[in-house]
Amino acid sequence: MPLVRIDLRRGKPREYRQALADGVYEAMRDAIGIPENDRFILVSEHDGDNLSYDRHYLGIERGDDFVCVQITLRRGRSVEAKQALYRGITERLSRSPGVLSADVLITLVENGPEDWSFGNGVAQYVK
Amino acid sequence: MPLVRIDLRRGKPREYRQALADGVYEAMRDAIGIPENDRFILVSEHDGDNLSYDRHYLGIERGDDFVCVQITLRRGRSVEAKQALYRGITERLSRSPGVLSADVLITLVENGPEDWSFGNGVAQYVK
Amino acid sequence: MPLVRIDLRRGKPREYRQALADGVYEAMRDAIGIPENDRFILVSEHDGDNLSYDRHYLGIERGDDFVCVQITLRRGRSVEAKQALYRGITERLSRSPGVLSADVLITLVENGPEDWSFGNGVAQYVK
Repeated sequence: MPLVRIDLRRGKPREYRQALADGVYEAMRDAIGIPENDRFILVSEHDGDNLSYDRHYLGIERGDDFVCVQITLRRGRSVEAKQALYRGITERLSRSPGVLSADVLITLVENGPEDWSFGNGVAQYVK
Repeated sequence: MPLVRIDLRRGKPREYRQALADGVYEAMRDAIGIPENDRFILVSEHDGDNLSYDRHYLGIERGDDFVCVQITLRRGRSVEAKQALYRGITERLSRSPGVLSADVLITLVENGPEDWSFGNGVAQYVK
Repeated sequence: MPLVRIDLRRGKPREYRQALADGVYEAMRDAIGIPENDRFILVSEHDGDNLSYDRHYLGIERGDDFVCVQITLRRGRSVEAKQALYRGITERLSRSPGVLSADVLITLVENGPEDWSFGNGVAQYVK
């Protein structure tokens, strides 16, 4: 059920952007137990002057490969699960496509089971 | 008050994208009673490799015309109203521009009346 | 901690878009007390037919320079602080880059301290 929005600078090859999506999906599988194939990821590429981010906030050194990951998901994950998710995403992305962990900002927005329809006009998570 | 984000593959004609926005607006009018002309819709077109979605999750067969609709709106709609909204959106989009209901993912994010300013720097829904 | 998404019509010069981001950041500094350098802003430019907004809703006259500002931030700001934020954003944007206050829609989405990782896979706001 998560809907993931990934924003990054324009110009990375297809394989790079695919690896970003793969890594976030796999981390969600592991850390917060989403179902297999529950994968809905939108990637947006921006010209450099449309990514306006501080390169030093909280003492973290961000570079040109800054990636923003915003995940909308159902309420109910523990703080520990969310921490594991952040670790899992950055560990995977550092392996492939090779994004420094300092360059990955992640933020979550929660909603309820009634706030999802995966197709056919049905709220599949409502009992 | 809803803010709607529609994401789809690049390349559909203007009339198609306009019909998507019209259909979502009309379904919100009918199903959740938004005011007339309360229409604020942002459409983003993506290259195919920037839309990463599972084509079979929950047994729904999605094709190339996958559309993601994310709506930010005020809290307070019932589960039944949300279900009517999902049905209304997919019914309208299947008539025009002709999107298969299987291809429409919808997700909602709620906020409060104080979380909206429609212009002039004023929170119009705060009493 | 806020993540800001700014959506506008394509074609404004870099300085204009930079001034939008600057104005929103400065207003957040003043009105809701975000830390210095807590600046993460994504700008998306749209072809005109992908911005579908009503030009008269609530009696506000919107033109071609319509700008949508969506801010994800931590819960806890008062209604008064949010009202000051809306005023601050529109006042700044009217000075630079010169956007009419009628053309600025703002909406907020709230989450918790555990919903942020600013890099390194750590939830920096969790104690």
